[in-house]
Amino acid sequence: MSFREDGAAALEWAARYLERVGELPVLAQVEPGEIRERLPASPPEQGEPFVNVLRDLDEILLPGMTHWQSPRFFAYFANSASEPGILAELLAATLNSVAFLWRTAPASTELELLTLDWAAQLLGLPEAWHGHIEDTASTSTIAALAAAREANGGSVVVCSEHAHSSVDKAARLLGLEVRKIPCDDDFALRPEALDLTDAAAVVATVGTTSIASVDPVAAVADACARSGVWLHVDAAYAGSAWVCPEFRWSQSGVERADSLVVNAHKWLFTPMDCSLLWTSRPEDLRRAFSLVPEYLRTSEAVDSLSDYGPALGRRFRSLKLWAVLRCYGREGLQARIREAVRLAELFESWVEAEPGWEVCAPRHFSLVCFRREGSDEENEGILERVNRSGELFISHTRVADRYVLRLAIGSDRTAEVDIARAWEALRSTA
Amino acid sequence: MSFREDGAAALEWAARYLERVGELPVLAQVEPGEIRERLPASPPEQGEPFVNVLRDLDEILLPGMTHWQSPRFFAYFANSASEPGILAELLAATLNSVAFLWRTAPASTELELLTLDWAAQLLGLPEAWHGHIEDTASTSTIAALAAAREANGGSVVVCSEHAHSSVDKAARLLGLEVRKIPCDDDFALRPEALDLTDAAAVVATVGTTSIASVDPVAAVADACARSGVWLHVDAAYAGSAWVCPEFRWSQSGVERADSLVVNAHKWLFTPMDCSLLWTSRPEDLRRAFSLVPEYLRTSEAVDSLSDYGPALGRRFRSLKLWAVLRCYGREGLQARIREAVRLAELFESWVEAEPGWEVCAPRHFSLVCFRREGSDEENEGILERVNRSGELFISHTRVADRYVLRLAIGSDRTAEVDIARAWEALRSTA
Repeated sequence: MSFREDGAAALEWAARYLERVGELPVLAQVEPGEIRERLPASPPEQGEPFVNVLRDLDEILLPGMTHWQSPRFFAYFANSASEPGILAELLAATLNSVAFLWRTAPASTELELLTLDWAAQLLGLPEAWHGHIEDTASTSTIAALAAAREANGGSVVVCSEHAHSSVDKAARLLGLEVRKIPCDDDFALRPEALDLTDAAAVVATVGTTSIASVDPVAAVADACARSGVWLHVDAAYAGSAWVCPEFRWSQSGVERADSLVVNAHKWLFTPMDCSLLWTSRPEDLRRAFSLVPEYLRTSEAVDSLSDYGPALGRRFRSLKLWAVLRCYGREGLQARIREAVRLAELFESWVEAEPGWEVCAPRHFSLVCFRREGSDEENEGILERVNRSGELFISHTRVADRYVLRLAIGSDRTAEVDIARAWEALRSTA
Repeated sequence: MSFREDGAAALEWAARYLERVGELPVLAQVEPGEIRERLPASPPEQGEPFVNVLRDLDEILLPGMTHWQSPRFFAYFANSASEPGILAELLAATLNSVAFLWRTAPASTELELLTLDWAAQLLGLPEAWHGHIEDTASTSTIAALAAAREANGGSVVVCSEHAHSSVDKAARLLGLEVRKIPCDDDFALRPEALDLTDAAAVVATVGTTSIASVDPVAAVADACARSGVWLHVDAAYAGSAWVCPEFRWSQSGVERADSLVVNAHKWLFTPMDCSLLWTSRPEDLRRAFSLVPEYLRTSEAVDSLSDYGPALGRRFRSLKLWAVLRCYGREGLQARIREAVRLAELFESWVEAEPGWEVCAPRHFSLVCFRREGSDEENEGILERVNRSGELFISHTRVADRYVLRLAIGSDRTAEVDIARAWEALRSTA
């Protein structure tokens, strides 16, 4: 194969995809099994040209894609893989370095530490924290809770009823019990209800998945400090907003956390996967994960980033974060975050103004929780029909025992016209 | 930025890198901290053009890279990110889909299941197994051992003294004890020494990290079957060799495993990260990991691949595996595996023929373990000096309490001239 020729074809496919993604149905319009049926059941005996792969990507796979890059992807937490981040992934795959020891990838190891320091400056986090990259918030939380368990021997993870399911999943993996604390009327953890008996850690959330509510981190930090309990803050989605000073109200107390996760692949325009994990107690992470067999011993007296999490192999993820931070700069990031929030405010104002619709939770960032006045079934029907139309993709949750629609803005490709189209589709469907 | 223009520059950088990587020093010739010092301590306020990123990659980062793509990278287990795999990573980052539910990425979910079936056919594995992709063998082993613990309630992981450190790391995470079984003279687990008291799982290794030795999987499978203990097979490196029938002697008994990990990013020419995990007991993996909060509930009666491992977020990793399997085909993969083994045989024959050098362990695949007759310090000195020369990069281990050099061939860029240069450098250094 000619890398230059095939590469040019792949790049052209990528460029055209990004140009036309806004006109593709957002949610894949296929039935389970349909894509697989169109592909051969067995691999080829002889190699094929790369253009065949591109052709089948276009003709067979594309109709089965849900388009996370669409400007009208509003489900879960919307995100965008920006152009600098995409091209950096090409470079990282070309280099294919594996950063399990400093020696195996010095530039990758040092750039990872540096970009996490850069990100800490951008988000206003304490300077002395140690930051590294895991694949997802699930893994970051596993790492943090493993360190907590190692540090204080507790057996319970305490969090609000609105904490993300990855906390339950991590606790199950680690053999820890989960204690759920009730929330107040703003869906925030009630600190006076905290019970820290046998607790290894509290997970406080800034920007919960259902409704982007904000736990009172400062009050939780007080309680953790009194009891010697690890405080892990899950700001996987909303932490990126701290690049703007006006959203730092939600950061109060975070500076006292033992660990913090923010997903750059959620709202910091970096392609999957790039979960940023900071800790003020790096030695506890090392204690939980460091393990040096003979074949990994080296003469350098220097940290290995594989000593801070479950995986040994680590790809060059910091390259894409570095590319995004440089190509956007602080001002570019701020402008994009502010625009997403402005669009969410606008959408919220339309819902509020429209008879028969209601906003269901306070909007803090770029997520709007709303519903049609009426039954849960009616709202579920609206969701299924708008999603099946391909016009937009939204998801749902339950708030105060009611079925609620969620519209999350995060892509920097989303413009006012896109939320207008979304609102029009929702209204006409209802 | 112009995606096409910047993309063309990135692609050209990648093409030139792959052309010249053989002439760069394999091991980075820098001191700890040196790369970081050359980079600004803070991120930019305003965005910069992407060409600045490329320029600094070239001028600042490149001297700090250890070149895993070099034809003379012989450390750990050598690998190669092939051209089709690299370009597929560009496409995956462009699509940026996240396959935590079928609905969020139908094509990605179905292609992942299909490519794992393809790979199973190529490697001669049982047809009915369920396969999916994790980032690394560390995570695959965590998933397998979590399922084992869930399935039988045991508290001990049993493996040979030569099992990979990721088994210890996974066990520590899961709160399981590790019981190491002594090996025979061929560095294979002695099945008659197996003690399965309270065992959750046995991890048998095909191709250990130190010496690529092969545990007697069939005998271990007998013992596991008798005691209801989960059998996990770690063939992270050597499993790829099964694409050639002549290496399937090492597969005997694997068909009775409960789970198996093979890293496509090691010796199947796929960029990091792509760890293939098969299981004959998918329901046990689901039982260990499935957890469906309200905001992830959908109407489709279809599996979610995030129910088979620790992470919720999952990027489109199958695309690169699909590209490699298609562009190389069975014959292309076989030819590359056979060439790597031929080169290892050749290198081994040179060592054997040379007075003052010895081969230290039976060679089964593409790894040669050898040493200079003399002290451990002398051999360590040779390793440090050849690595510092930049001419090649090898790693070491301890076998039978002696310091041993390891030369692992895995890159399809490695040619006979490269191992000749390596051998010449080793001899002249000694």
